[in-house]
Amino acid sequence: MEHGPLGTDVVSESASGGADRSDRDRSGTPTDVTAVIASLMREVPDFPEPGIQFKDLTPVLADAAGLAVVTDALAAVAEDADLIAGIDARGFLLGAAVATRLGKGVLAVRKGGKLPPRVHGVTYDLEYGSATLEIPADGIELAGLRVVVIDDVLATGGTLAAAIELLRTGAATVTAAAVVLELSALNGRARLPDLPVTSLYVV
Amino acid sequence: MEHGPLGTDVVSESASGGADRSDRDRSGTPTDVTAVIASLMREVPDFPEPGIQFKDLTPVLADAAGLAVVTDALAAVAEDADLIAGIDARGFLLGAAVATRLGKGVLAVRKGGKLPPRVHGVTYDLEYGSATLEIPADGIELAGLRVVVIDDVLATGGTLAAAIELLRTGAATVTAAAVVLELSALNGRARLPDLPVTSLYVV
Repeated sequence: MEHGPLGTDVVSESASGGADRSDRDRSGTPTDVTAVIASLMREVPDFPEPGIQFKDLTPVLADAAGLAVVTDALAAVAEDADLIAGIDARGFLLGAAVATRLGKGVLAVRKGGKLPPRVHGVTYDLEYGSATLEIPADGIELAGLRVVVIDDVLATGGTLAAAIELLRTGAATVTAAAVVLELSALNGRARLPDLPVTSLYVV
Repeated sequence: MEHGPLGTDVVSESASGGADRSDRDRSGTPTDVTAVIASLMREVPDFPEPGIQFKDLTPVLADAAGLAVVTDALAAVAEDADLIAGIDARGFLLGAAVATRLGKGVLAVRKGGKLPPRVHGVTYDLEYGSATLEIPADGIELAGLRVVVIDDVLATGGTLAAAIELLRTGAATVTAAAVVLELSALNGRARLPDLPVTSLYVV
């Protein structure tokens, strides 16, 4: 998904100090992940409007240890999945990383209009207007597969809920969702009541 | 990048027969890669216009063996890189997969307007209009890094050339580019004369 601004300061789940990036723990404990994200994330004050602090994960993923720690932590949620779904566009980065780590495939859940027919699609409401997510209707058999959905940010939950609905129309079993950043003030979890949602860093 | 239609039938680099997906060779010989892509790619005739055959890689990446074989083959180009760059949006899937396979970071080269300031950007011409690619100007130090750029398709080469220019403005050394599909009729290689370009499947 593409997320908007993040509205509050960080409330870290971790009580630890600074991240020691040279001492990465492949078991990926939440404390390590939180500290690594905090140390690498780019925070842009007053964007896109005064009082809002935008949080950009680009430098986290561009860092070898950052990508590995985040990937390991998300992958821990998806070990039993048959397929990883990543949401256009930044969820592609994380979904593909997790799939590669686990030796699974990654299903690109695309924004509307990118794929040739036939597609399965779902249209959902945004704050202003609407958006569509699509997957190919041919060449991928979802029936009976256990799918874990990966994205970068959980904001209002609308995009994740739509992706889950889309996968379920293909008769997949969505077993979990996982994101790097959760904007808890937007209460996106309320839109996803029926499956476990993991976030690595809560704002 | 987002590619348009692919205009000709497949001219495979491989003389091999069908892909044996259960016999994946982690050394990633080109013959295996080509056959696996051919066996999984979704081909949509007469899209977006009559006589054009659209080629959709989504099922290749959604297949565990498909993603692994493609990732291994692209990663072979990038073993000496310090950083992998993936181009918005489908290059994110492949760039992140390669980075994860090699234990490196992935730099998301974004479409214009997605990132908060400050950014480095480059605007380039398309057949109709123009497009912009951006990367953060803070939090990522590119100077002196050897970067390999990954995307899904080499078409006219405009997007890849722009990404390379953008990385070079940050003083990175772009050492190679690699894509899954090359549309040879569009002669994109002519736009990239000064570095090695690997494609796994030539149309």
